[in-house]
Amino acid sequence: LNSGMFVHVRNMLESMAASDIALLLHSSPPKARTVIWQLIDSNIQSEVIEELSDEVRNPILKNMSPEKVAEAAANLDDDDFADVLRGMPDAVFKKVLKSMDKQDQVRAKRVMSYEEETAGALMNTDTITVRPNVSVDVILRYLRLKESLPEATDYLYVVDKNDTFIGEVSLAALLTSTTSKLISEVMETDFEVIPATMHDSEVASLFERYNWISAPVIDENGILLGRITIDDVVDVIREDAEHSMMSMAGLDDEEDTFAPAIKSTRKRSVWLGVNLFTALLAAFVSSLFESTLDQLAVLAILNTIVPSMGGVAGSQTLTLVIRGMAVGHVTQANSRWLLGKELAIGFFNGLIWSVLIAGVVAIWKQDVMLGAVIAFAMMMNLIAAGVAGVLIPLMLKRMKIDPALAGSVILTTVTDIVGIFAFLGTATWLLI
Amino acid sequence: LNSGMFVHVRNMLESMAASDIALLLHSSPPKARTVIWQLIDSNIQSEVIEELSDEVRNPILKNMSPEKVAEAAANLDDDDFADVLRGMPDAVFKKVLKSMDKQDQVRAKRVMSYEEETAGALMNTDTITVRPNVSVDVILRYLRLKESLPEATDYLYVVDKNDTFIGEVSLAALLTSTTSKLISEVMETDFEVIPATMHDSEVASLFERYNWISAPVIDENGILLGRITIDDVVDVIREDAEHSMMSMAGLDDEEDTFAPAIKSTRKRSVWLGVNLFTALLAAFVSSLFESTLDQLAVLAILNTIVPSMGGVAGSQTLTLVIRGMAVGHVTQANSRWLLGKELAIGFFNGLIWSVLIAGVVAIWKQDVMLGAVIAFAMMMNLIAAGVAGVLIPLMLKRMKIDPALAGSVILTTVTDIVGIFAFLGTATWLLI
Repeated sequence: LNSGMFVHVRNMLESMAASDIALLLHSSPPKARTVIWQLIDSNIQSEVIEELSDEVRNPILKNMSPEKVAEAAANLDDDDFADVLRGMPDAVFKKVLKSMDKQDQVRAKRVMSYEEETAGALMNTDTITVRPNVSVDVILRYLRLKESLPEATDYLYVVDKNDTFIGEVSLAALLTSTTSKLISEVMETDFEVIPATMHDSEVASLFERYNWISAPVIDENGILLGRITIDDVVDVIREDAEHSMMSMAGLDDEEDTFAPAIKSTRKRSVWLGVNLFTALLAAFVSSLFESTLDQLAVLAILNTIVPSMGGVAGSQTLTLVIRGMAVGHVTQANSRWLLGKELAIGFFNGLIWSVLIAGVVAIWKQDVMLGAVIAFAMMMNLIAAGVAGVLIPLMLKRMKIDPALAGSVILTTVTDIVGIFAFLGTATWLLI
Repeated sequence: LNSGMFVHVRNMLESMAASDIALLLHSSPPKARTVIWQLIDSNIQSEVIEELSDEVRNPILKNMSPEKVAEAAANLDDDDFADVLRGMPDAVFKKVLKSMDKQDQVRAKRVMSYEEETAGALMNTDTITVRPNVSVDVILRYLRLKESLPEATDYLYVVDKNDTFIGEVSLAALLTSTTSKLISEVMETDFEVIPATMHDSEVASLFERYNWISAPVIDENGILLGRITIDDVVDVIREDAEHSMMSMAGLDDEEDTFAPAIKSTRKRSVWLGVNLFTALLAAFVSSLFESTLDQLAVLAILNTIVPSMGGVAGSQTLTLVIRGMAVGHVTQANSRWLLGKELAIGFFNGLIWSVLIAGVVAIWKQDVMLGAVIAFAMMMNLIAAGVAGVLIPLMLKRMKIDPALAGSVILTTVTDIVGIFAFLGTATWLLI
């Protein structure tokens, strides 16, 4: 992106779709993003903004004048509009609000009134509503006057004069019904609606379960507020799935791959600090057996094997339970069955790897008793890992702590301590 | 689910939607699944089958007669039909095929001709096609004769007399256009099409990028074969996102949370075996310093801290890079920038935690030199972790090995060995 290339890049950007430009911005380091942004045709900028994640979007908006931000934001869908406004510092937000026209100011206040991660924050108000007592023919003529429909419209919503949601009629039904029929005769009334306060993960699982393309959002009195479309839900599904993976590795799930190093260091150091604490705890447990280690240096060499195996086995169980809880398969009701299963797996895997490690150690170190000690510790720790892998996420969830975030560090602490105690403790008892 | 409850459960099941029954089956242990399945009304069974994952579905199908399987399968969408057929052992498949009628046999052969995880295996053939030279009015009358449209239909496809795809016309356009216009005047021709051989992850990222609800699938000659709908793509998106998380924990991403313990033990033991090998490798590296450990038991106690911190820091980088590669943000082109960034993070985090651990060890063990040794080892290992976290997934990808599956075990091996060498090696050099 250096000298002379600008014209070339600008031409390339002109031929690209907004979503492809967004991908390019996501794949570029911060400095390149600023340069690319300035080369983007201003007509397409608001479309590109819509496709950017918060982490990439906010630094770009920070460098624009409030008037330009207001102008770009005004063209956005309600839910993206809310996202953009939420990403701004208070002072900037006030300036941007001032430079908006009246109508957009009202809209900004409305979309900001729903908390993040609720159905209300995910919805758009671009619904087409019809009354039950008109004929299909009238609606067809009305649509022809409109000339275009909002994106992802598969249903028109039927409301009474107070905007109470009473049913929905699909475009397919409008196209296939006799035109003289009334809307009330062709509408579906066995609908499911989404309350504006529902958590967006729950919205996503409803969409997945019922294969919806769009769904109506209502307030606590049954008044239609707007609709949620599948394209926004797809983002929630991906984010939720990524959240578990990122959290389990101790990453902030909003971390931008190309964020500046200092910013990333700060975010990641928290987890490293927590891990250093647990590693010191494990070292402290080992230090209780210092005189044993002093007498038998071979124990020091083997001391990492049992905790390591416990950590891996426990992570397998933990990951499966966290995934199961996220998709709604694991609940309190079947947790006892699951505990029994994971206990059994811990026992079977304990059996396999105990025998193997006993053999390896007995041959390597020419000490059958040492082999027996490490085998016993392995068995204990794999069983403990299975139990901990089931119980830790269930307990965390009951305490309303995110199991994906805190689960793995607690689990490793348990498997480290059990592993060290079982190995060095048994060794102290039997070998010294 | 014991005695006397059957009637109650049957009544409950009757009032539930197919997708809710599927959720119940997924949340139940294998034995309960068999019981619940027998209580499900046979009219709704094929709808439920469609919603089940392979792991839950296959044991159920195994217990049904070939005739019943053929009957249930015949009602499925093409892509689910293919999934069901693929899940059957060859002998059963042949029996089922025999008990199908001619038309379904032809269909079975066609859907089976596309490899799993391609666009062809994901598509349905329930498209509505129209010719360009007819008027909107004619199409509207044609649709009214059909009385219903396939699910998730947002576009009709325009083809010539050889079924070559030449454009698409949205239901919205049909509803809002002047009825005297020709299809060729209202159709969109700047379409993107999906070749039948495209990988389903790529299909998913196109749907995400362009907010599609359905998209046409064509063969290598441009002939329209069918269409892919967003509900099937959502499953691909979730599976892809889960794949990374499950693989990184050493789990088969098809593992059913409620699979029998023996089956799960077998699947998980592979990873534990690999881990045991690397743990033994680390133990072997430690054993190179056995005489050092013999002289200074305190080293044995602290020997786990540096590898543990390296493992966590490396996993953070690895997870971020794997996610970035999956969504297409990380490529060869920006990998050098990324390596520089992760090197910097390793250095900064190394600085923070080196100073801290040096202080803790110096005070705890009353040995400033020991503190300096562990600080140096920590610095080395965190830098190595950052480099390994970027390079390992990139190299694996170039070798066409799944980075999510093999990445974490290779990374831990690197951080274990570097950590042990840096700590015990420096200690041997400076303290003995």
